[in-house]
Amino acid sequence: MPTAVEMRDRLIALHDNRLFQAVVIGVILLSALVIGANTYEVSPTWRRVITSLDVGITVFFLIEILIRIAAEKHGIRQFFKKGWNTFDFVIVTMSLIPIEGSQLVLLGRLLRVFRVLRLISIIPELRLLLNALLKAIPRMGYVALLMFIIFYIYGAVGSFMFENVNPTLWSDVAIAMLTLFRVATFEDWTDVMYETMAVYPLSWMYFLSFIFLAAFVFLNMMIGVILDVMQREHLVIDMELAEADEAPPGASAEDDPVQRRLARIEAKLDALTGGLAAPALGSGEPAGPLGR
Amino acid sequence: MPTAVEMRDRLIALHDNRLFQAVVIGVILLSALVIGANTYEVSPTWRRVITSLDVGITVFFLIEILIRIAAEKHGIRQFFKKGWNTFDFVIVTMSLIPIEGSQLVLLGRLLRVFRVLRLISIIPELRLLLNALLKAIPRMGYVALLMFIIFYIYGAVGSFMFENVNPTLWSDVAIAMLTLFRVATFEDWTDVMYETMAVYPLSWMYFLSFIFLAAFVFLNMMIGVILDVMQREHLVIDMELAEADEAPPGASAEDDPVQRRLARIEAKLDALTGGLAAPALGSGEPAGPLGR
Amino acid sequence: MPTAVEMRDRLIALHDNRLFQAVVIGVILLSALVIGANTYEVSPTWRRVITSLDVGITVFFLIEILIRIAAEKHGIRQFFKKGWNTFDFVIVTMSLIPIEGSQLVLLGRLLRVFRVLRLISIIPELRLLLNALLKAIPRMGYVALLMFIIFYIYGAVGSFMFENVNPTLWSDVAIAMLTLFRVATFEDWTDVMYETMAVYPLSWMYFLSFIFLAAFVFLNMMIGVILDVMQREHLVIDMELAEADEAPPGASAEDDPVQRRLARIEAKLDALTGGLAAPALGSGEPAGPLGR
Amino acid sequence: MPTAVEMRDRLIALHDNRLFQAVVIGVILLSALVIGANTYEVSPTWRRVITSLDVGITVFFLIEILIRIAAEKHGIRQFFKKGWNTFDFVIVTMSLIPIEGSQLVLLGRLLRVFRVLRLISIIPELRLLLNALLKAIPRMGYVALLMFIIFYIYGAVGSFMFENVNPTLWSDVAIAMLTLFRVATFEDWTDVMYETMAVYPLSWMYFLSFIFLAAFVFLNMMIGVILDVMQREHLVIDMELAEADEAPPGASAEDDPVQRRLARIEAKLDALTGGLAAPALGSGEPAGPLGR
Repeated sequence: MPTAVEMRDRLIALHDNRLFQAVVIGVILLSALVIGANTYEVSPTWRRVITSLDVGITVFFLIEILIRIAAEKHGIRQFFKKGWNTFDFVIVTMSLIPIEGSQLVLLGRLLRVFRVLRLISIIPELRLLLNALLKAIPRMGYVALLMFIIFYIYGAVGSFMFENVNPTLWSDVAIAMLTLFRVATFEDWTDVMYETMAVYPLSWMYFLSFIFLAAFVFLNMMIGVILDVMQREHLVIDMELAEADEAPPGASAEDDPVQRRLARIEAKLDALTGGLAAPALGSGEPAGPLGR
Repeated sequence: MPTAVEMRDRLIALHDNRLFQAVVIGVILLSALVIGANTYEVSPTWRRVITSLDVGITVFFLIEILIRIAAEKHGIRQFFKKGWNTFDFVIVTMSLIPIEGSQLVLLGRLLRVFRVLRLISIIPELRLLLNALLKAIPRMGYVALLMFIIFYIYGAVGSFMFENVNPTLWSDVAIAMLTLFRVATFEDWTDVMYETMAVYPLSWMYFLSFIFLAAFVFLNMMIGVILDVMQREHLVIDMELAEADEAPPGASAEDDPVQRRLARIEAKLDALTGGLAAPALGSGEPAGPLGR
Repeated sequence: MPTAVEMRDRLIALHDNRLFQAVVIGVILLSALVIGANTYEVSPTWRRVITSLDVGITVFFLIEILIRIAAEKHGIRQFFKKGWNTFDFVIVTMSLIPIEGSQLVLLGRLLRVFRVLRLISIIPELRLLLNALLKAIPRMGYVALLMFIIFYIYGAVGSFMFENVNPTLWSDVAIAMLTLFRVATFEDWTDVMYETMAVYPLSWMYFLSFIFLAAFVFLNMMIGVILDVMQREHLVIDMELAEADEAPPGASAEDDPVQRRLARIEAKLDALTGGLAAPALGSGEPAGPLGR
Repeated sequence: MPTAVEMRDRLIALHDNRLFQAVVIGVILLSALVIGANTYEVSPTWRRVITSLDVGITVFFLIEILIRIAAEKHGIRQFFKKGWNTFDFVIVTMSLIPIEGSQLVLLGRLLRVFRVLRLISIIPELRLLLNALLKAIPRMGYVALLMFIIFYIYGAVGSFMFENVNPTLWSDVAIAMLTLFRVATFEDWTDVMYETMAVYPLSWMYFLSFIFLAAFVFLNMMIGVILDVMQREHLVIDMELAEADEAPPGASAEDDPVQRRLARIEAKLDALTGGLAAPALGSGEPAGPLGR
């Protein structure tokens, strides 16, 4: 009988096995198909096949996550420190709710949908992509707040002014904001405007100013994301280059004017490529302009 | 009893206090909630709570602005020289109009909505963001004028041609421009076009040429903003770098060809990073290539 | 009595006078207002005022263009060599058609609308902007051709397949292309699709593939314009810099490796800033890598 | 009688002849017109003209492709190795199906539509453009997969939740995804939302979260394409420059610190211009920082 350490090593080997990874991806895709099949009206025979498959998939996911926990060298606490592990664990645990039985059927089915998200946690490229997308969010934070303030002010004004025109669209600030979101997507917005213009002929100013403001701020939000992504892209290229580069030469003679100017050019180029500038400048060139 | 100067110092200390700032932001948020609550049908009890809260908020804002005026070292005139101070003062003054009473209720409520804008004046990041957005406007000025000319010409032609088709959409140049704005947002534009095509079969040329022109000019407008924002972004990075940089070396020996070329490269890089080029070049290198 | 030359000099002086330019802009704006007023139902008194104003404006424009022709030093042929002059002349000539009288009223009014375009020819910034927009067109030429091919193919297929479903939308290739343009703007496109899906359940593939193709090619078209504008912007900045720069030093000693590499860096920077690279490289550095 | 080699040389000369190329483009355009004419109701006379033209065009295309095969120096296998040749061959072969006769008329007509695509294969600029567009696809692969996962999850949830609200829109996961695509294009999306909100008042969260997610991921997809195109553009400029440049100097004395730093600057500039960096660095500078 193998010892515990041998056992763990075998589990690690199994888990890192390319074939095993492919099987896991295959089971996730099968799980997605089963979820999709559940949305169709099927014959009782197929219903039973789907239910059996669901049980099989649930058990497979449970075993897989247990293998991964057991294969974790530094104990169970270390396992849950990685966000994606916790993510997988929650998804697997949630789908233990049965999909047969009268009460929890809908909940069970809904929770099983999130199994498809495991595709993101298992494919490294998707994980990277999602991390990149998440990093773009903070940058947009204050622009989103500004957008919310605009919506809130226009929503309150719209609710005060137009409630008597059409209570379905303007009864309170929340419903008015939903109506404004509709206007911002240009979805039948002229119907909303013509209706209020019949009562308040100048209300086109309310709608046009809102559309211009929202479009303008949204445009700047979009540019924020573009700039952010571009800088990160350049950063990555820069880092790849730095790795391919030779080791930096010892900072022997850095004090003639040509080199000082070159250091400045390099710093500027770093600024262009995206933000590695300061540390590179700080470590590479000891700040000694007067040293000569 | 404290002297006037001691009193002012205490007020400055109070005003700069982090906790006080947090309380002000909290009261602004509460004010926003009260405004929102006003848009709902509430029981008389809640109505009375809301009215009391409104009085409390109005008094708080009044005291806060008086503290800030008193805390201003260089007198009341200096206080109003800062745009955001005047902005706050106007908002606070306007909301002194009572929200109870038969006549001014709606006006009072509308003016209170603008209190939410104080969030922008009190959160430095939002203030910076708004300043940045405002700076992008002049750049778009001439493109906006060109856009207006296009709308005006198409509006006048549309009004001359299609008035008999549908007076609601084309009766005069102003209404025709509103209809064209609708077409530019693609909002049920084919309904407008099919209607006129029933009378003038070639009117699709009017609509398609308008859509292409408007989209083309709008695209260039958008690019104008993108470029503007990008250049300002780079400027900021550049300035941060410049601060982190050592003091510029004394312009001792700038007259060998390598360095002159390097100066040109640097100037070009400055052009790329956004516009600091001329002054940096001007101050750093005294224009004396022949001086030695 | 002044001689012909003196006369011409006076006309040139008048034409270059700032006040005169302002008056011309004012008359163009007045002309635009008169055109707009024509779209409203007005009382007979106002109608007469508008007609008188129109006569006055027409005469003013005629005199102004005659002054400009007379002020042209190199004769009338030189005058018409400038595109904007011909543009103005055509607009002025066209609006000699009277707006009163039974037959040509509509034509007269329509032609007068184009007077607003004189704003573009007289304000230098708008002229520059329009030139810039026109320069972006060739770049988009082949992408537009590709787009047209996509529309033509889908239009022909749609006309063959869906003519029996709804002849109003698909009767021939031209009408089908208009319907496809509507689909591309997302204007009630699902109505079109659901209608055809009732007959051909798989027709969603036709619509979705078209939307993806059109959006994808349009996106690339947009990027083409963005890149084009960005490169031209950088070029302008670069040229302004070059003017502010000192005169280029005589190409004395250009043959040590540092300088050759620097020349290459500069060329690359020129490529980045937009296209001035080749001439600057060609004139500045005599191609002598073997000269040492 | 000419020998086989003489014959082939004559065919090559004919094929490379500018006039012959122009004739081929003309026939393709004529073919497009014939296809378009087929979509109109025409008189029997015109019908016969169109049929004759179609026969003529088919024969011409057949001869043209045979000439190109015969003109291929390295045999027929080499001919089919070029993708565009196979593309042309398939199109020409497919359109041998007659357009007259009861059964295959529609198929024959549909296949003839693809002849218009030969415009792309014969105009080099369009061929380049299409190659460029195709190159942008892989980059978007993972983002498209992520988008599909989002659509699939929302589709399954929507199908489980809203099937009883409106089976036409939500009956199964495929139909729900089509409905979600409609929502993503903002096409009457509020109609869909208001309908479900009547049953599930909180369903606006489903729609708004979906719109934000889809818009956010789409935005990043778009930026991916923009970055990709920009890098390729810069690469092209860079390569043109490199060709115009002198031959690179022999890597004689590359070991003083100025030059090493310059090499790093150049590498960074290459990173900026797009990806030629690594090879240029690798070949140009033998990695010898310790060599001095």
